[in-house]
This record gives sequence, structure tokens and C-alpha cells, in this order.
Amino acid sequence: MSLGHTYGCGVAIDAPDAMVPIRTVRNISLNPNFGGEVMMVSLGCEKLQPERLMPPGTIPIATTAADDVADIGDSGADANGDVVVLQDEEHVGFQSMIESIMKMAEHHLSRLNNRRRETCPASDLVIGVQCGGSDAFSGLTANPAVGFATDLLVRAGATVMFSEVTEVRDGVDQLTSRAANPEVAAAIIREMQWYDDYLKRGSADRSANTTPGNKKGGLSNIVEKAMGSIIKSGNSAISGVLSPGEKVRQKGLIYAATPASDFICGTLQVAAGINLHVFTTGRGTPYSLAEVPVIKVATRSDLARRWHDLMDINAGTIATGESSIEDVGWELFRMMLEVASGRRETCAEKLQLHNALVLFNPAPVT
Amino acid sequence: MSLGHTYGCGVAIDAPDAMVPIRTVRNISLNPNFGGEVMMVSLGCEKLQPERLMPPGTIPIATTAADDVADIGDSGADANGDVVVLQDEEHVGFQSMIESIMKMAEHHLSRLNNRRRETCPASDLVIGVQCGGSDAFSGLTANPAVGFATDLLVRAGATVMFSEVTEVRDGVDQLTSRAANPEVAAAIIREMQWYDDYLKRGSADRSANTTPGNKKGGLSNIVEKAMGSIIKSGNSAISGVLSPGEKVRQKGLIYAATPASDFICGTLQVAAGINLHVFTTGRGTPYSLAEVPVIKVATRSDLARRWHDLMDINAGTIATGESSIEDVGWELFRMMLEVASGRRETCAEKLQLHNALVLFNPAPVT
Repeated sequence: MSLGHTYGCGVAIDAPDAMVPIRTVRNISLNPNFGGEVMMVSLGCEKLQPERLMPPGTIPIATTAADDVADIGDSGADANGDVVVLQDEEHVGFQSMIESIMKMAEHHLSRLNNRRRETCPASDLVIGVQCGGSDAFSGLTANPAVGFATDLLVRAGATVMFSEVTEVRDGVDQLTSRAANPEVAAAIIREMQWYDDYLKRGSADRSANTTPGNKKGGLSNIVEKAMGSIIKSGNSAISGVLSPGEKVRQKGLIYAATPASDFICGTLQVAAGINLHVFTTGRGTPYSLAEVPVIKVATRSDLARRWHDLMDINAGTIATGESSIEDVGWELFRMMLEVASGRRETCAEKLQLHNALVLFNPAPVT
Repeated sequence: MSLGHTYGCGVAIDAPDAMVPIRTVRNISLNPNFGGEVMMVSLGCEKLQPERLMPPGTIPIATTAADDVADIGDSGADANGDVVVLQDEEHVGFQSMIESIMKMAEHHLSRLNNRRRETCPASDLVIGVQCGGSDAFSGLTANPAVGFATDLLVRAGATVMFSEVTEVRDGVDQLTSRAANPEVAAAIIREMQWYDDYLKRGSADRSANTTPGNKKGGLSNIVEKAMGSIIKSGNSAISGVLSPGEKVRQKGLIYAATPASDFICGTLQVAAGINLHVFTTGRGTPYSLAEVPVIKVATRSDLARRWHDLMDINAGTIATGESSIEDVGWELFRMMLEVASGRRETCAEKLQLHNALVLFNPAPVT
């Protein structure tokens, strides 16, 4: 699959915060769901040069095409992986650019086509959890059920990440008190501070979150919203912290700092390396990602009924007393295993719905 | 045509700089190339609510669907134009959302289908000029030819806008001295100052522009680049200034302040109301826009030869002595009339190439 992005030309590439979009693009391409076969199509004159996007050693050795260089000829294979540069002198006419791309892709596709599904333990799962279009039921039904499943996953040895700085910020004490060690607590505080500073530079603060829809749904302010959002993380100890766009390198419950914006949070969790995503909603959204399956959980039975083909799980039954938090948590846990095993498709996969990835770029454009 | 964008959820909608992306989306939809038939598809709970995107009176009366309200029923036509809200209670299942959108679109499409091409004077043209992937020849061949054509257009009563703050900033005295009146000069200085402050907040300055490709092409720094960039504006008096995302409301030569990033500058010029775009390049780029035709001018004969199906005009003949600045300027002027009249397709139109629109959002996301 091709990952188009709009970053890299006309940007302040040396600004301190430019590391965020750069490592995001890099780490998205290294998400295991893409199979580790990376090639780059570069214009040639852009700020974000291929060697800056993928410094030598970034792409795992097994997937570099060193043995294919002779076949590919002059068109750009190098130690950083495979690169097609559109401005290369050899390209005469648009068709020759397309041919170079297709020729280089062939090597990767033939290796990918040889791959076969293998049975893996649940501990190999890397799950991202997120809420969007929240309402007053989010913190009572869907998010606690997700939290229960999070605990099951962490107990099974998997990795689970929760995110959304502005939607945990007012409950930071609930996070630091669960930090596995003082370094993790300090890292949580560091990420909150970074975000406070970022908002302040733009003359905003976290009261800029909640949305009109949140309010209609009964969430009066960001403090209330945060209380309902944090519960997605369950009760496990927080074992690590990621800055926006960083790749996860450990197991357990991880706090991956991201904006709360659905599209941006999802993009950064893809960069962090999730292979499955869980999304809860009360107001409703057709949100999905092309890169990883997204399981959507409705907070209310009314939404689940109306959006019968968009919502995978109805947590509204917790509010009506038809089921418990544990019941829905187990249902979600089992569905995650089914989807990850390719035995079940999510609603969004059936409808082939997905958002564009949206990069977080706190640095200026020029 | 549908204009998807990734702004409006999870953003600091009340931050001072949020006006930039908001008015950009609004004004793109009002670009005359879209025929004035505007409808909105809203999720429902987002920060950028339809009435904020399109306040009452924004859409010209002739194109609001007041007389169609009865037909459309409850699904959302109002004084702000036509709106489909996905979260509306009436929508049961994904297919009903699609049906609402298609039903509302039908009214607009039937009116658009009744439109016929009419002969218009050259003074109705609104042209945006831009350079990207510049080299040392940009300021010697392509840009002076564009400047000559700019003067012809302004003389014909048309509107021409040039942009790219960081690529004129070091020659600001060349702009203020051509301001039609002191207010225009003050507005130019105001836009430069806004941009200086914006870059400073992100710990960058305008030396972040030039690109590696610019340097390989012989442009050592931003001052040199600016001298070659400004000349696209010709010699006419500057009659007006636009802030990023504003819509043009006057004739003559306009300075439309935008970042120099090709995609963002093009997007903001589309918002400003261009119906044709001229793009010069020395390093080469397949740049184009889906919303307006883009005429691409090569600075060197070598590029024009290699990219024979991507470059519309070769200004390299000025360097070889085969033609003069005036010759290429007239060639470009005539081609603009041909393309605007639908008698000739640009290279990018033939190949159906276009970039994504990229919004400029200097405000934070949350």
C-alpha cells in the first residue's frame, strides 16, 4: 500500500518540533502491518530527503534489497532501502517514472506474496485504544468495557496504548500514581508540559476540547471528559511513555502522547506500531483506518441500533442492565482475537471505510 | 467535486489563528470553478460546525436551495446552504447517509448540468502565479517571462496574484515601493511581520527555505531565491493584499500572503479565487491542482526535453538565445487564454495529475 503524505516540501525541517512529523512518517512505514517491505518515492529536491526520512539502518536488514541492486540497475536502490527519485536524469517522460516505481515495487511484492499467515500468541498484539465523538455514556459503558479488555490484554502479555493528552490532562494524578516507576511518572509529566506549552504558543488551552457534540451528549467540560476517557486504560501499571510519533519498544500498558483529534491520534498510534485499533463513540463516527482494523464500540444502544452496520459492539447494554462491564469487556477481547486472526471483519472493513492519515506538525511551514 | 479536508475535529477552533483554515475551507468552496453550488456533509459533533464554516449569507443567494427545501425534506437544507449531517437521527445505517448525500447533490448537479460555456473578457481571469523546485535559472528565464505575462494580464484588466512570504521577504522594499497606496504598503509589511512572528514561535526563520534541490540548482540562499521569485509579479503597481485564505475582491496585481510550500500556496490561491494557475520549476515537479488548470513552465531546456509530457512551456529558450522574455511571455499569455477558454488542455490535465489540497493551520490541534 502507498502512504502518501503532504509533509516534506516547504517546511522548517530543522525546527525542534519537525522531529514529530518526520519520525511519524518513518515509523508508519515501519508498522508491521506493512510487512517490512519499504520503498520510497522521492521528488528529489524536497527538504525531507530519503536519507533523512530513513537514515541507514532504519529499515530492518532482512528487508533491504541489497541482493536485488544488480537487477534494479541505476534507478536508486541503496543502503537506506529502495528509492525512486522522480527528478533523476534517467527519467524521460512521466511514463518512465511510473515504470521505475513499478519495477522496484515488483521485488517487494514478490516477497510479500510469499508470506503466509502464522499463528501468534496474544502477547504479540499491539492495540491502540481511542475515543471520539464522546458523550456522557462514554465513561460509563464503552470506555470501562475497553478498560476491562485492556487489563485482559496486558495480563496476556500484549501491548496496549492509550493517548489523547488533553483528554487525560485533568486526571494526570490518576496516571502518575499508576506509573511503573518514577521515570515513567516523570515522562508523563514531561509530555503534559510539552503539550501545555504547545497550546499556549498558539493562544489556546485544553478547554478548546470539548466539541459541540460532546456538550449535546452531556459532557459539560474537559475535566468531566477526561475522567471518562482515562478509564479506557484499565487498572494496570503504566510501563512506558511515547512522545508523538515514536515507535513502541516494550510490552504492557503504554501512554502514547498524542493530540485527541481522532485522525491525528490514530495516525500517531499507527506510527507507534499498533496492529489493531479500538475506537469508542457516543455521538457516532464512521472513523476507520486503512492501515489497521478498527473495532468500533457504541456507548448507547440507540446509536448501535441506528448505526447497525457501522458499530461492531454495543456497550449500551451496560447502561440498560442487559450486560455487565465484564461481559462487554470479554466480548471485545474475543473480537480482537478474531479480527487479528483474520476470522472476522470489522464493520468498517466490510464497507471499506477509512480516513486519510493526518500528520501532527507542530513546527512551522515556510 | 467533493472537497475533503482533515480540519475541524480536535482543533483549537477559538485560537486566533484558526481563522486561517476556516476561511480557507469556506473560500475554496466558493471558488467560481465549482459553479457556486455548495453543499456540506457534516459529521455533526465536530468543532467546525456548518454554521461556523458558512455563516448565513456566505453562499450567494442565487445558489441557495431555498426553493428545494420542500423536496429535500428534513435532511438538512437551511439558510446556510444544504447540509447533510451524518449523525442525524433519521439516518439508519450507512446506506441512508449515502442516499441523503446523493439526493441533495442531485439538485445541485441538475443546475450545474444546465450551465453552458459563455465567452468572457480576459478581465474576468483571476490568475495565481507560483514557483516551486526553483533553480538559478528561475529568476533568469521562467519567472521574468511570467512577470511579462502578468503585466499583460493586469493591463487587460485581469487579476493576478503572487504569493510565498518567505520568497519575497528579503526583497520587501521592491514590493512596498510598488504599492498603489500607503495602505497597501502597510498591509504588505503587516503580512511579513505576521509570518516572522509565526516562524519565531516555532523556533525557525526564513533561512529554513531554500531546499536541498534549490541549492543543487545554484540558489545559495533565500535572499537570492527571493530576487528571482519576486520578478513573477512583473512591474505593475500592487493594488491589494490578502491574508492567508482570504478571497480576492478587486482587480489588478494582488499580493496574496501564503507560505512558499507549493501545496499550501496553491491551496490558498484556490481559496483566494483563482481560476487558472501558472507554476514555474527548474528542478521539476509533477505538481498540479484538480480545482484549476495549472500551466507549468520549465526554466531550462534540458528539463523541458526530459519532462516533455509534464512541462507546458519551455522558458529555457531564453537562456539559449532562441527566444526573448517577451516571446515566452506572449506564448504563456496566449496559452492562458486558450486553456481558460477550454480550447487546450495542460500536460497535467492530460495525465490527470493533481496534488491533495493542503490547509495552512497555524493554530494548535487539541
